[in-house]
Amino acid sequence: MESSSIKNYILDSAKNARQSALALSCMSTEEKNRALQAMIIHLNSRRTEIQRENKIDLENGRINGLSAAMIDRLTLNDARIDAMIQSLKELILLKDPVGTCLSEWTRPNGMTIKKIRVPIGVIGIIYESRPNVTVDAASLCLKTGNATILRGGKESIHSNRALAKILQDALIEAELPKNAIQLISTTDRQAVGELLQLNEYIDLIIPRGGESLIRRVARESTIPVIKHYKGVCHLYADKELNPKQAVSVILNSKVQRPGVCNALETLLVHESLKETFLKEICIKLIESGVEIRGDDATCRVCPQAISATEDDWFAEYLDMIIAVKTVKNVKDAIAHIEKYGSRHSDGILTTNQTTANIFLQAVDSAVVYHNVSTRFTDGGQFGMGAEIGVSTDKLHARGPMGLEELTSYKYIVTGNGQIRE
Amino acid sequence: MESSSIKNYILDSAKNARQSALALSCMSTEEKNRALQAMIIHLNSRRTEIQRENKIDLENGRINGLSAAMIDRLTLNDARIDAMIQSLKELILLKDPVGTCLSEWTRPNGMTIKKIRVPIGVIGIIYESRPNVTVDAASLCLKTGNATILRGGKESIHSNRALAKILQDALIEAELPKNAIQLISTTDRQAVGELLQLNEYIDLIIPRGGESLIRRVARESTIPVIKHYKGVCHLYADKELNPKQAVSVILNSKVQRPGVCNALETLLVHESLKETFLKEICIKLIESGVEIRGDDATCRVCPQAISATEDDWFAEYLDMIIAVKTVKNVKDAIAHIEKYGSRHSDGILTTNQTTANIFLQAVDSAVVYHNVSTRFTDGGQFGMGAEIGVSTDKLHARGPMGLEELTSYKYIVTGNGQIRE
Repeated sequence: MESSSIKNYILDSAKNARQSALALSCMSTEEKNRALQAMIIHLNSRRTEIQRENKIDLENGRINGLSAAMIDRLTLNDARIDAMIQSLKELILLKDPVGTCLSEWTRPNGMTIKKIRVPIGVIGIIYESRPNVTVDAASLCLKTGNATILRGGKESIHSNRALAKILQDALIEAELPKNAIQLISTTDRQAVGELLQLNEYIDLIIPRGGESLIRRVARESTIPVIKHYKGVCHLYADKELNPKQAVSVILNSKVQRPGVCNALETLLVHESLKETFLKEICIKLIESGVEIRGDDATCRVCPQAISATEDDWFAEYLDMIIAVKTVKNVKDAIAHIEKYGSRHSDGILTTNQTTANIFLQAVDSAVVYHNVSTRFTDGGQFGMGAEIGVSTDKLHARGPMGLEELTSYKYIVTGNGQIRE
Repeated sequence: MESSSIKNYILDSAKNARQSALALSCMSTEEKNRALQAMIIHLNSRRTEIQRENKIDLENGRINGLSAAMIDRLTLNDARIDAMIQSLKELILLKDPVGTCLSEWTRPNGMTIKKIRVPIGVIGIIYESRPNVTVDAASLCLKTGNATILRGGKESIHSNRALAKILQDALIEAELPKNAIQLISTTDRQAVGELLQLNEYIDLIIPRGGESLIRRVARESTIPVIKHYKGVCHLYADKELNPKQAVSVILNSKVQRPGVCNALETLLVHESLKETFLKEICIKLIESGVEIRGDDATCRVCPQAISATEDDWFAEYLDMIIAVKTVKNVKDAIAHIEKYGSRHSDGILTTNQTTANIFLQAVDSAVVYHNVSTRFTDGGQFGMGAEIGVSTDKLHARGPMGLEELTSYKYIVTGNGQIRE
């Protein structure tokens, strides 16, 4: 496509999305659920079509030398399609937050003010290789009355086109506006730049992918963005702790699934525990296959540890590696997390409630933990039923984002002729 | 200042603000109120100092040919200083939202999740000529535990420096971090550009001023921005209405204070009322000194009306001018507001509840009114006690923003060793 065509194509998509969003905002939960039900039927009956297109992406991926991990994330086998269908089934059962009255009051002049949950409007989702995001993100937005413009990675373009076609067919069958879900069908990078300028039609951008993608989106967007760059999660093992519990929480946070944003990256240990707990946890970590990058004190008690550099304190390894540092006290731990952390998920392991309270108040992260694994920062684990992402922003949504976080509100003021004096 | 000095100066200010914000987030309501009390005392006793600096701005303003209205907004007479003091007194009495538990639940594994209100962190306020914003914005942010970086207009730089000095002296006296309130003391435009890139230290930007300032900020900022560009507010007079009430609400919305964002700009009238209500309201508007820009039907029944152009439907006059148009029905009115409106404040005048409900649901504005003047879109009128601004964004805060809208939340998860399966 030529540059001017891309510009017009994106503009038209955004205008269509805005029109669809207005129609969606007046639709009942039943109507929206009917479309989700139609999606289930189409996904289930059109597996051949999905997998035929997915095969093209996989072949292109092999030719272009994608890593085995990337190829795996790209693959839409039957189990992955089943998982999408299962998520849609669960989504149908979740409560629709739209229309809820958040608060209501009457002013002395007799007018009544109601604060009502409404959809956000048009949401742009910019994501990388995993094609299941197409279905997951679009369906969560639809349930909450939002129209979506999806922009996936070029690696999964054929899969995404097939899935988007299915979603639109389901919308048509359920008599919902077809343009409530649109996929940007060009892989040209210019398309993203154009999209990010359309704050007149698009209300929110959610980027999902690597840090460089998210930084580009945040830098270029004139539309509000909800995001997290990375998760450099910490646990601080205080001098007063239950060692058995602490070992279990640290190992779970680090090794249960090291490649995700809520996995532990840096362990801080009170210096009084050098010869006891620190020694013990290092052995346990190494036994679990974790490489240790330690400060001097750690390297002294754990000969297998590699000496940490300044970069290690900033690192999001997403791997079986951990940075370990001794600190003087809880304030020192808080200062380290403030300097090197990413304000995602950080916790304290202590039996002293006063120390815990100091930490929980002062650490400025989306989720702070006391004697709990950092791996719980997740919409499902929080009981939200579904998750569109995790935010480390302070505005609108912070931490795991479920259906309520995909809504805004409006004020409805009713009266009988009130005028301002 | 040289370009590199400005860059370093802004970076240092932002880092200092971040440190102060962390300290503020742990402070009690009493400590914050003590600082507000000290501000009252300093403002009251240092009027000579404020007015001496203000006089320099006023003289420069006259030399630079500022309009009488601009000069008026710039003037810090005793009444204006009294008004600042009064706002501070009221602010001390308002409830501090920080620390409120928004919700709390326990998961099946026994861990407890609490959602707690916390300050947003560092807030940048970018504003134009009125120097009272310096005190109003900084004090509202302080009450909610936020640090502020203030960037006022060059016209009010001497006044702002004097006020910021007073606010910092009050912070020092109350033993709060001095850098919790900082004024950018250079008027170089580069400073704003630098500020808007510091998303690592600044959590929110609130621009207050004309549309072009706000558009520049939204375009350049990598930090979330809460704003409204303008208020093109509508009232729709439905075929079924109480004419006396409707006249009163329309006149109040238009003439009570035409220069503000919640004043009425366009009146839509059901076409069946051409010869009756439309004629009557046009006479009343003209009697009140309002100029009418009408569609053909309006010009036919009101000879004094000027024929409206397409631009009139988009216009935010902020003046004694109104655009008047006839529409076929409520859907036509909704479509007009969607096309030309600014999603700020729009209302319907009708005795038919069904018609009202269609309008209130479909119109996508921050505040929608039924038989009430649009002039109530205001934190004070909503009963919030104080207002930092009005937002037409969908994210975080929509409509009037009071103290609660200056907070974020964090999740505190406590348990006894919960790990993820």
